[in-house]
Amino acid sequence: MSSLIAVNLPDNSYNIAIAPDSLSQLGEQMRPLGLGHKVLVISNPEIFHHYGAIIVQSLEQAGYTVSSHLIPAGESYKTLDSIARIYDTALQHRLERSSTLVALGGGVIGDLTGFAAATWLRGINFVQVPTSLLAMVDASVGGKTGVNHPQGKNLIGAFYQPKLVFIDPQVLRTLPPREFRAGMAEVIKYGVIWDEDLFTQLEKADRLQDFSDLEAELLQVILTRSCQAKADVVSQDERESGLRAILNYGHTIGHAIESLTGYSRINHGEAVGIGMVAAGAIALKMQLWTEPEASRQNALISKTGLLTHIPEDLDTGAIVESLQMDKKVKSGKVRFILPTQLGKVKITDEVPNDLLGQVIDELKQ
Amino acid sequence: MSSLIAVNLPDNSYNIAIAPDSLSQLGEQMRPLGLGHKVLVISNPEIFHHYGAIIVQSLEQAGYTVSSHLIPAGESYKTLDSIARIYDTALQHRLERSSTLVALGGGVIGDLTGFAAATWLRGINFVQVPTSLLAMVDASVGGKTGVNHPQGKNLIGAFYQPKLVFIDPQVLRTLPPREFRAGMAEVIKYGVIWDEDLFTQLEKADRLQDFSDLEAELLQVILTRSCQAKADVVSQDERESGLRAILNYGHTIGHAIESLTGYSRINHGEAVGIGMVAAGAIALKMQLWTEPEASRQNALISKTGLLTHIPEDLDTGAIVESLQMDKKVKSGKVRFILPTQLGKVKITDEVPNDLLGQVIDELKQ
Repeated sequence: MSSLIAVNLPDNSYNIAIAPDSLSQLGEQMRPLGLGHKVLVISNPEIFHHYGAIIVQSLEQAGYTVSSHLIPAGESYKTLDSIARIYDTALQHRLERSSTLVALGGGVIGDLTGFAAATWLRGINFVQVPTSLLAMVDASVGGKTGVNHPQGKNLIGAFYQPKLVFIDPQVLRTLPPREFRAGMAEVIKYGVIWDEDLFTQLEKADRLQDFSDLEAELLQVILTRSCQAKADVVSQDERESGLRAILNYGHTIGHAIESLTGYSRINHGEAVGIGMVAAGAIALKMQLWTEPEASRQNALISKTGLLTHIPEDLDTGAIVESLQMDKKVKSGKVRFILPTQLGKVKITDEVPNDLLGQVIDELKQ
Repeated sequence: MSSLIAVNLPDNSYNIAIAPDSLSQLGEQMRPLGLGHKVLVISNPEIFHHYGAIIVQSLEQAGYTVSSHLIPAGESYKTLDSIARIYDTALQHRLERSSTLVALGGGVIGDLTGFAAATWLRGINFVQVPTSLLAMVDASVGGKTGVNHPQGKNLIGAFYQPKLVFIDPQVLRTLPPREFRAGMAEVIKYGVIWDEDLFTQLEKADRLQDFSDLEAELLQVILTRSCQAKADVVSQDERESGLRAILNYGHTIGHAIESLTGYSRINHGEAVGIGMVAAGAIALKMQLWTEPEASRQNALISKTGLLTHIPEDLDTGAIVESLQMDKKVKSGKVRFILPTQLGKVKITDEVPNDLLGQVIDELKQ
């Protein structure tokens, strides 16, 4: 059971390889890519404790000279300062333009590593080995890399493509259930915006709250279809000038909620779950979507154990104000992605502010 | 008298406009590019004192909302910290993805501004208004942006193309003569590596040491042919995978000398001048080049008032060691660009270390 997804881009095409229990084959899989002999693995202490040895051994057996650089876990380390420390290590090991950074970890490690790879020597090689569900289905595909500014998430970054994304679904067994559910929010997103069949397969599952709830086959389907959906969209719009915006479904209000709760109380996936409920409610009020489909979306979000309400202590005005800070704001107008039927969305910047405030108020609990 | 040079790249083509006394037309020239309404001008206090008002007025008259951000002059400010301060200003003025950074200054301002533009919101627009000869003929063309690491120049950066390079040769009247000569080193470089006719035109000039030495027409020729040479090379190799390496003629040993003298005692152009003399001497010893042509090169470098010797206090071993740190080192081998006849060079990593040491020793004075 394995899948290979080709992400076709004008200049920088690459593959996503998904296969259970494949970690020990990373080195072998990298060999045909013609990368230089030096590899620097970037990870965090816990992930490296679980998987560092097998990754390093696999790379060394394939002939690479391997060093590692660990960054404490957490979004609070997704900073320019962490990047500066990666640069120091890159210098210390005298990485060359042909050298490779391997990101072994979740989205934070992937985003940091990608940005460091994009900007060290004006760009060195980069391989993603995502270890969280969120990173597998979202952050590892599409070339978005970057760090947070003290006043805003992901404001600093670059588009930079990996040479390979290497996914071993079995590493999800060490992922905390809350993180698993956060990843499921993005999986549900692909169902709503792109792949109705993925959506109905998720509906059929009895439970979706944890890695142990899923048969290996359903997990392989989830990963493959989610990565394929993202790859389809990104291939058509590498630089986010049009279609790619649909991937931000649930993220507009989601980002505001994450930001206003300090990026800790509510995690990214949970915020996206709430954001999708909100976007669905806006679409309903604007008569773009039907009630039965909106209910099916919200039921699936609930079944996954994600939140479906906005914390009541958040100020509606503050949320609306925070939306204005979103980097996708164009000429002062907030852009929303709204569902029109399962598997289809439209992009609009015509959501009236009062309707927005009303939906936010109604979703508070 | 004006020139327009098209830099043709697969995705990001742009023009270089060269016209005397054109500064006040910047806004007008930007209008057809379809950029957003917010512009942030990045400059240093002295340059902004000379040209800030005319630039801001021109942009405002063209309908842009303009703010500015000043960085103290000097290579010592080409740091990640200066970039972080630009980010803060970008956030304060709520720049959007369609917004534009205008680099008004020399190479340091251009490199900083380009890197900030490449990495803010994963890439916003960027216009170059170079005010030094070096920036006009080198840094403003080709998309190299970046900052220094405390232990090495330009180790951090990105390839990122401007939307427009806008050159008014008359701004060179406020450039210190030493900076003018530094720029002439790159002009001579284009003669040696690409454009024999440019080389012979330079040979014909009586004096080349200062802006006031040059007729406006010769200056226009120098700027146009130099930018054209660089544009030709960059168009064929945007990411420095092959041909573009020839632009590093004189830079290999040049960078080592700059680095070992702390980036202050000897400036970039002066170091490149010495580097060209050294590369010529290596080519001679390897029987790739002829003595008469090497002498003509060195005479032209001398006529421009540039250095032709390595400071005798620099340790030969330290220079050779420093070469190993160059980011263009491939699998531990130092790559040299060596002339074979005026207008032509070859790329080689086969320069024996003892020959290298011998040339360095012989050039000391």
